Amino acid sequence: MVEIVEVSPRDGLQNEDRTLSTEDKLELVERAARTGVRRVEVTSFVRPDRVPQLADAAEVAKALPDNGIGYSALVLNVRGYQRAVEAGIREVTTLVLASDTFSERNQGTTTREAVEVVREIRRRGREDGVRVAITIGASFGCPFEGEVPESRFAGVAAAVADVDADEVSLADTIGVAVPSDIETRFGLLRECAPGVPMRVHLHDTRNTGVANAVAAVRSGVQALDASLGGIGGCPFAPGASGNVATEDLVYTLHRMGFDTGLDLGAAIEHARWVTGKLGVPLSGRLGRVGGFPT
Amino acid sequence: MVEIVEVSPRDGLQNEDRTLSTEDKLELVERAARTGVRRVEVTSFVRPDRVPQLADAAEVAKALPDNGIGYSALVLNVRGYQRAVEAGIREVTTLVLASDTFSERNQGTTTREAVEVVREIRRRGREDGVRVAITIGASFGCPFEGEVPESRFAGVAAAVADVDADEVSLADTIGVAVPSDIETRFGLLRECAPGVPMRVHLHDTRNTGVANAVAAVRSGVQALDASLGGIGGCPFAPGASGNVATEDLVYTLHRMGFDTGLDLGAAIEHARWVTGKLGVPLSGRLGRVGGFPT
Repeated sequence: MVEIVEVSPRDGLQNEDRTLSTEDKLELVERAARTGVRRVEVTSFVRPDRVPQLADAAEVAKALPDNGIGYSALVLNVRGYQRAVEAGIREVTTLVLASDTFSERNQGTTTREAVEVVREIRRRGREDGVRVAITIGASFGCPFEGEVPESRFAGVAAAVADVDADEVSLADTIGVAVPSDIETRFGLLRECAPGVPMRVHLHDTRNTGVANAVAAVRSGVQALDASLGGIGGCPFAPGASGNVATEDLVYTLHRMGFDTGLDLGAAIEHARWVTGKLGVPLSGRLGRVGGFPT
Repeated sequence: MVEIVEVSPRDGLQNEDRTLSTEDKLELVERAARTGVRRVEVTSFVRPDRVPQLADAAEVAKALPDNGIGYSALVLNVRGYQRAVEAGIREVTTLVLASDTFSERNQGTTTREAVEVVREIRRRGREDGVRVAITIGASFGCPFEGEVPESRFAGVAAAVADVDADEVSLADTIGVAVPSDIETRFGLLRECAPGVPMRVHLHDTRNTGVANAVAAVRSGVQALDASLGGIGGCPFAPGASGNVATEDLVYTLHRMGFDTGLDLGAAIEHARWVTGKLGVPLSGRLGRVGGFPT
């Protein structure tokens, strides 16, 4: 079993020109649930002036149906964590960017300071019974510094491991990783944090998303973020496409014999719906050509 | 060293609405050479009423510059072989389709009959000093029959191995393969034909092209077909995209530490040129976003 975490309501929507209504966002979450997914990243509790597309985070969170789906939300600091918990969120994804320049620009802290913020959120999470995942962003390359050397990554991974979170994710934020990077860096993560559940967050910017997903699953990664239709993108990487498309991952993983619990036909249907709502083309390929055999 | 065989002048052009002039085709071959590629599949000697885009095969072949590049051409029968050799071609790619239905529709023979045609071409090739490669088309799935069972594939691979060609290629003609398929079927091929140089021909229809290329290289495949810009498509698979893009393979393979001899910047430049000439969007991703680090 390989888990797909549907992140279209968060990462998918935060960089699109068109902002969906709260009602449409809730419909997207419900449609995601109908694909068979068990966890959805529903929004981000960040500054509304920075990410106006998700300014209704609390309204979305408060209106989520109680249907057995795990809902997570991205938070970047303690203030965001508090807002999320007040809105009923029981799982947060936190972010440590692997390069100082990117970290300073994205959240106004160095990487090391971000680790301390995450440690405080983890402490509160234990008190509140809130699950805390940590994403190491730009694990494979930085839009400002370029290469993130293996030694740098290893230091960040060790610091993150020390926080002892419920899950650690490596994010290819700007879509530069290749399979050998995935294998090496998850290997380093496993050395730093033996036994921690590992997750990966991939962008298909350079057509390596599916190859990296396969490498991740074969490296013992248990959960893969994906977006219906491959929507989204990175504001720091012009021309970048979004997350690897849910439907493309489902096709590949199922034909390789991995179960995801998702239904390919449903994923394609809802990928078409969300790209239609956003007025963007399907970035994933399965929605254009359909599965095989038909 | 992993060899990339540039097939855009053949597979890339044969399914596009717009037909390039002979002059533009020759420019495409020259531009391909400037990427650093050592082998180009320049045209196909097939019936001009079936593939009007390549009706000028002989004119193209006769005008090829003598610059150290290896030129190959696709032929489907002895008549095509003769035309190719008369036009100066010294390497042919022949085709055995793994399913009878597809073979009958594409070239009017059963799979078994196609093997005999290829055997005769091989015999003549030895006499003429012409290199003969065999492609097993639809190795991973057929547009008419659906799944190509492993047992069926193994039988075809054994028959093809018996012809003792200079190279055997497995083609994912309709773009349905996943990495485990690549590993299994090249494993079977290697058992049938130990030591034969192996080549793969991938379409990126379902976003598995790069993942399959990585699996192929790791399975001992020495040559990968690719098209600048990812141009092309399969007339039997509506909505299908073309070959895996040369520039996308170059990016991934180089970052994984494999040398191809190609220059990524040049591949992107010429991918833009050919898609511009054809009036189609870039199917590959690197031409939109550029390499990394920049």
